[in-house]
Amino acid sequence: MAYTFTQSRELFQRAARVIPQGIYGHFNPSTTIPGSYPYFISRAKGPRFWDVDGNEYIDYSCAYGPMILGYAHDRVDEAFATQARKGTATMPPSTLLIDLAEKMVEVNDCADWAMFAKNGADTTSWALVLARGYRRRNKIVLANGGYHGTQPWAGSNHTGISPADRADIIMVPWGDLDSFQRIVDENKGQIAGAMFTPYHHPVFEQQVLPAPGYWQGMRRICDENDIVLMIDDVRAGWRLDIKGSAHYFGFKPDLACYCKAIANGYPISALVGTDKMRIVASKAFQTGSYWNNSPEMAAALACIDEMQKIDAAGICDARGLQLRRGLEECAAARGLQFNMSGPNAIPFLHFTNEKNFKRAQLFCKECSLHGVFFFWHHNMFLSAAHTEDDIRKTVDVADRAFKTVKEHFGG
Amino acid sequence: MAYTFTQSRELFQRAARVIPQGIYGHFNPSTTIPGSYPYFISRAKGPRFWDVDGNEYIDYSCAYGPMILGYAHDRVDEAFATQARKGTATMPPSTLLIDLAEKMVEVNDCADWAMFAKNGADTTSWALVLARGYRRRNKIVLANGGYHGTQPWAGSNHTGISPADRADIIMVPWGDLDSFQRIVDENKGQIAGAMFTPYHHPVFEQQVLPAPGYWQGMRRICDENDIVLMIDDVRAGWRLDIKGSAHYFGFKPDLACYCKAIANGYPISALVGTDKMRIVASKAFQTGSYWNNSPEMAAALACIDEMQKIDAAGICDARGLQLRRGLEECAAARGLQFNMSGPNAIPFLHFTNEKNFKRAQLFCKECSLHGVFFFWHHNMFLSAAHTEDDIRKTVDVADRAFKTVKEHFGG
Repeated sequence: MAYTFTQSRELFQRAARVIPQGIYGHFNPSTTIPGSYPYFISRAKGPRFWDVDGNEYIDYSCAYGPMILGYAHDRVDEAFATQARKGTATMPPSTLLIDLAEKMVEVNDCADWAMFAKNGADTTSWALVLARGYRRRNKIVLANGGYHGTQPWAGSNHTGISPADRADIIMVPWGDLDSFQRIVDENKGQIAGAMFTPYHHPVFEQQVLPAPGYWQGMRRICDENDIVLMIDDVRAGWRLDIKGSAHYFGFKPDLACYCKAIANGYPISALVGTDKMRIVASKAFQTGSYWNNSPEMAAALACIDEMQKIDAAGICDARGLQLRRGLEECAAARGLQFNMSGPNAIPFLHFTNEKNFKRAQLFCKECSLHGVFFFWHHNMFLSAAHTEDDIRKTVDVADRAFKTVKEHFGG
Repeated sequence: MAYTFTQSRELFQRAARVIPQGIYGHFNPSTTIPGSYPYFISRAKGPRFWDVDGNEYIDYSCAYGPMILGYAHDRVDEAFATQARKGTATMPPSTLLIDLAEKMVEVNDCADWAMFAKNGADTTSWALVLARGYRRRNKIVLANGGYHGTQPWAGSNHTGISPADRADIIMVPWGDLDSFQRIVDENKGQIAGAMFTPYHHPVFEQQVLPAPGYWQGMRRICDENDIVLMIDDVRAGWRLDIKGSAHYFGFKPDLACYCKAIANGYPISALVGTDKMRIVASKAFQTGSYWNNSPEMAAALACIDEMQKIDAAGICDARGLQLRRGLEECAAARGLQFNMSGPNAIPFLHFTNEKNFKRAQLFCKECSLHGVFFFWHHNMFLSAAHTEDDIRKTVDVADRAFKTVKEHFGG
């Protein structure tokens, strides 16, 4: 029996009266498929959530990344709750600030120091400020299709943007060393920093892994031109390598941004940097109402420790490989042109013989209606809570969805 | 016996190795007084915290505002913990998103809709985008000494700022209708919006309440010139009036920003607006990794409900009045020129015959050394957890500190 969404629809009507668009951000209904996705959930546990109509899903959103150990993870939740009994926001901070900074420096390959905030965008915006302050230059290079948050300079929102917001931003194609070299030459002595994701994960497009030598080339160009190399590891961080995605790809940035999976869903982000960036990081005044909150730091410490202990990145990779092979084999067996791009742990699904996403939408709809929560427009995420059996069940549901796609489109 | 800070100092050495400045933000040791303040706390409960050396304080930081019901408040903590067992970050969101938006619309005088984020600065930055998107103009008016966060446009950080960051910002003195009118006339048809705090709370300066008719005049000028009036109620919000500080001062903004006391320390902020801003709020793409987290919404619902039930703003005002009278009377009895400016619930202490803060620093030092946590550079906060007896004990400590100031400075 396919799922129905009576409660979701009724609640959405209520939401639309008091919330612009009803639901804002990535899960706005404009990116879902009418009548085939839930709008509100009632609870989540492990790799599953249950929507307000009682439908159960094996989830590959992982809340767009934060969930890496499973929803409502006992150890992380207990660490948070224990610390919350000693206060949440406090001033002065608790000693967990030190413990967590030491932990970041211990596990992260490029970190000589760490600072903490709430959003990924806090850390990407902060990195820009530090690059400009360090180099006393203003221009920043970003990649087309890169995502660094919804603040005006980052280019993901197009309403209410002033030309000044992006006056110092130069865009290049991701992964193109020659373009980067050309931009650097054309702006000699003017570029403060370059911010990129460790691999390319745009929306509505296949993901791109770095070519051999790409990052080493980027590091060299940055060094030759005194450009601060900033890695936005908000989305990929912790799922590729506990030491950071830059380590995974064999290079060392000057600043790296972390968020999402750092505390399995509790709100904390981190900026880490090398020694050369320490003084400017001391000079730039940055703070927020909850940036010293200790329970989120306790959750991050527990989450990082658990990720190390179980090798969460390794599990995500293995489950992702199982999922990728399962889906690609089922699709091939039915004569469909389908692949999963990007890292196993963070895959993007794609029917390679279409540009309009019609097959992808039908596929995701059929999966959603039968308990597998996939996306067609954005990469998905594996977690360490997904079991081999969850992946097998997922592939079974996907196989029937591929059958429907085949019947509907013929190939 | 005056307090000592051996553990704080040792821990600060450890912190400085892995954190730029050791502690960043408002509580950086540069704003404390050497040897007289703790650097790290071990726990907080009610209106008190205990530092790592075991010293106990009656606290008037309230974590710079978030704590309004008392640290580790059982009802709010339980609401958070109960919801956390159903997941933290999820996608889709939980129905608490709707419940909280409805609650904001119900309690807040100017709210026809609400959206939620993590930092106060998320909401002030978001408001700017909506004002620009609504008016299709770029210029924004802010007040000298106003604080809207540490992002580049807001002017509180001076390192790593590009000229473009503030190219569209026009500064006026706070509370000066004529200056505002002049700026509006000089920039006819170019100003998208004006953002102000509901009363003036700069650092290092006495606070200023609005003169009669000021806000009504501002509202009129904004209406006559199609300027979006934005109120940054991040700091004052919930302590003056549950309906918003704008309601308290008798006017209606188009957008208002909330954070801090909304959830007694759990990380959530809110942007609310009137109907005319709803469509642009639907168009501007704004999101963050944890903006749909449901436990923070449960905490906010519990906190707002509790604030309504006990009239938290009324209690903060009453306790603040008791504190103000107590301190001003003790100071006067000792022949000191001292006052507390701003609202009773959010006072700034000041020796009126000095500009260099020497008396204020000695006073705060003596208070800190004897268990009362006051600031000399920034406003303080009352909470509903402060009892009349806490205020009496505070006034006793303060009286001895005034005696020391008198002995040292003679007046």
